[in-house]
Amino acid sequence: MINREAWELGSRRSCIRELFAYGRAQAQKLGEEAVCDFSLGNPATPPPEEVRNTLRALAQEADPMTLHGYTAAEGAATVRRAIADELNSRYRGGVRESDLFLTAGAAPALTAVFAALTVSPESEFVAIAPFFPEYAVFSGVRGAKLRIADADRKSFQIDIQALDKVLTPATQAVIVNSPNNPTGAVYTRETLTALAKLLAARAARFGHPIYVISDEPYRELVYDGKETPYLPEIYPDTVVCYSYSKSLSLPGDRIGYVLVPPACADHDALLYAVAGAARSIGHVCAPATYQQVIERCTGARPDLAFYDRNRRLLWEALTSYGYDCVSPDGAFYLFCRAPGGDAKAFSDRAKRENLLLVPGGDFGCPTHFRAAYCVEEAVIRRALPIFRALAKP
Amino acid sequence: MINREAWELGSRRSCIRELFAYGRAQAQKLGEEAVCDFSLGNPATPPPEEVRNTLRALAQEADPMTLHGYTAAEGAATVRRAIADELNSRYRGGVRESDLFLTAGAAPALTAVFAALTVSPESEFVAIAPFFPEYAVFSGVRGAKLRIADADRKSFQIDIQALDKVLTPATQAVIVNSPNNPTGAVYTRETLTALAKLLAARAARFGHPIYVISDEPYRELVYDGKETPYLPEIYPDTVVCYSYSKSLSLPGDRIGYVLVPPACADHDALLYAVAGAARSIGHVCAPATYQQVIERCTGARPDLAFYDRNRRLLWEALTSYGYDCVSPDGAFYLFCRAPGGDAKAFSDRAKRENLLLVPGGDFGCPTHFRAAYCVEEAVIRRALPIFRALAKP
Repeated sequence: MINREAWELGSRRSCIRELFAYGRAQAQKLGEEAVCDFSLGNPATPPPEEVRNTLRALAQEADPMTLHGYTAAEGAATVRRAIADELNSRYRGGVRESDLFLTAGAAPALTAVFAALTVSPESEFVAIAPFFPEYAVFSGVRGAKLRIADADRKSFQIDIQALDKVLTPATQAVIVNSPNNPTGAVYTRETLTALAKLLAARAARFGHPIYVISDEPYRELVYDGKETPYLPEIYPDTVVCYSYSKSLSLPGDRIGYVLVPPACADHDALLYAVAGAARSIGHVCAPATYQQVIERCTGARPDLAFYDRNRRLLWEALTSYGYDCVSPDGAFYLFCRAPGGDAKAFSDRAKRENLLLVPGGDFGCPTHFRAAYCVEEAVIRRALPIFRALAKP
Repeated sequence: MINREAWELGSRRSCIRELFAYGRAQAQKLGEEAVCDFSLGNPATPPPEEVRNTLRALAQEADPMTLHGYTAAEGAATVRRAIADELNSRYRGGVRESDLFLTAGAAPALTAVFAALTVSPESEFVAIAPFFPEYAVFSGVRGAKLRIADADRKSFQIDIQALDKVLTPATQAVIVNSPNNPTGAVYTRETLTALAKLLAARAARFGHPIYVISDEPYRELVYDGKETPYLPEIYPDTVVCYSYSKSLSLPGDRIGYVLVPPACADHDALLYAVAGAARSIGHVCAPATYQQVIERCTGARPDLAFYDRNRRLLWEALTSYGYDCVSPDGAFYLFCRAPGGDAKAFSDRAKRENLLLVPGGDFGCPTHFRAAYCVEEAVIRRALPIFRALAKP
């Protein structure tokens, strides 16, 4: 009587959530100080002051009917206008408010786009491993297949030849996530230009567009002034899925968008299909209060300095202990080769010391572990001696 | 390259949204005073003072990391505890916090339950016509069939014999929506007891449970002290989908829940399947700020007096003009037989006078129209002469 697939999905928690729950239980038993939890990508800085002031002002002064009322399914026009203006102030492409569809964060944005691009059970999407494991869940919403291409195992940039091998006439889209979860890599302009060239050639051969789904929750989290090229400028058939979860530290409030840029193939049909797919998964409108917050805070930015301090501290210490870590140019993850090469065994050893690290198996990279450094600096300082002791396999 | 079903769903707006958009355009052209818009079920009263004060206090004083952070997928434990306590203060059944799964309103709650209960393309759900047209969208998320049983055409209570005729061994659940959209009918204890008796008998014959999905966004909107029996007390295999959209005038903020009561068949598996189905449609957690609001406002109630004044005014006038209206015991809709019996033709006539009424065809009842009286009283007063003039077919 119960859908088996849904039951299985609901009854086994993700490895990350499992570790996080274990950490909470250990902290209750042994005290917060005893646990070094690097499991979850939950921002450890509050939302920018501007965001908090805006919420206060709206709660005090806004007309409650507007603040709490339904908006159009695609989001309030004024909000979409503000987002388009901000994008146009940074990038070329002439985004219009009608190119945007606001969602309850990146997860339903991705789900709606996958659903909109699934035309049969043979439809295929491609992820670059290591990748955010929920892609496998979201892309399956209408029964499509997820194929995997390994990233370059040194730079963790896209391996163009490896990607080419998994493209088929059934390929509907390639998911690009830069800055990357779990590696922290930021794809270079060179990487993205090579990707665009490959996809354009294969699209021409197969006789249909191959979309890029650009999953960008970490867009604003880039260090050392590194460039994060705007994919629609490089490859027109790009659909952007954005979230304010990480950039404005609003993960629980669920606000983000789908952007189908003006030059994207089948622009209107695709936007309609995103709207229809969203409707079919119970989307009514993105949370209205936070639409209003975003309208007034499109220029707000995360506390990069906070993450950067953590990044330097952790990366410098771990490399000095002999860990081999991916160059952490963006997001708030450090992705390192497990001493001994078996990340599951290594993270189990770490877990016995109450140091919680996510083994890369679920990301499609079982040799590496992920440490989410969106934590208090004190957590890192407590963890360093444990990392040092564990460095020898 | 684009999913056709999603494209179709996204490109044709619902009849209700279409009328609403037409009304906005007419109001811009002719002025607000020229349009009498009864199309949309958008609450016309602000949230209760208690809710607005709570939001202000949270925005001022709450720890921003807790206010905006991820919660568990099922919702924060303290919030679910508060909801369970409030339910237990009103009803028997011993609801536990672990029986609740918080969602972004009733739409994704329903979608997750339909998905959890769809085991094959042969799975069937039953709606009682007239019914909220999105049931047809949500129930189809995993390809199940929606079958229709007509309500009694006099009382608009469930017609038990008509329902029995559409039950089959493939029936997974019957959707019950009381107080009802679009009719305003509130199912009596007698109706629900007869329903329970029928479903128990058919479940025994078919050898598996038949669930009731109780869609309850209008639970708190009942007039004249009428009783709204709590379905899990009458029929244990009931799953409740609740929303605070109407009861607390928070439609845009998207907060509600699925309740699988303790005595429900396959309780644990069903809750896991709801969680898994929600995850597969991009649910991460219900909006965190509004979880906190709900925790502190479980006892808040809508401004019933406001709706009741409108209800009396509209019902008394329309019946005095000769309209045949369903007894409007709950929700904020008046459902009336169209003079002449063709609601589409009638609502087109009304539209020419800028009086916007939803014809019942999309609800599965083409003889009646729906007037949503969640509007300013002045709108009703302006509309009465038009209703009077249109009363003769």
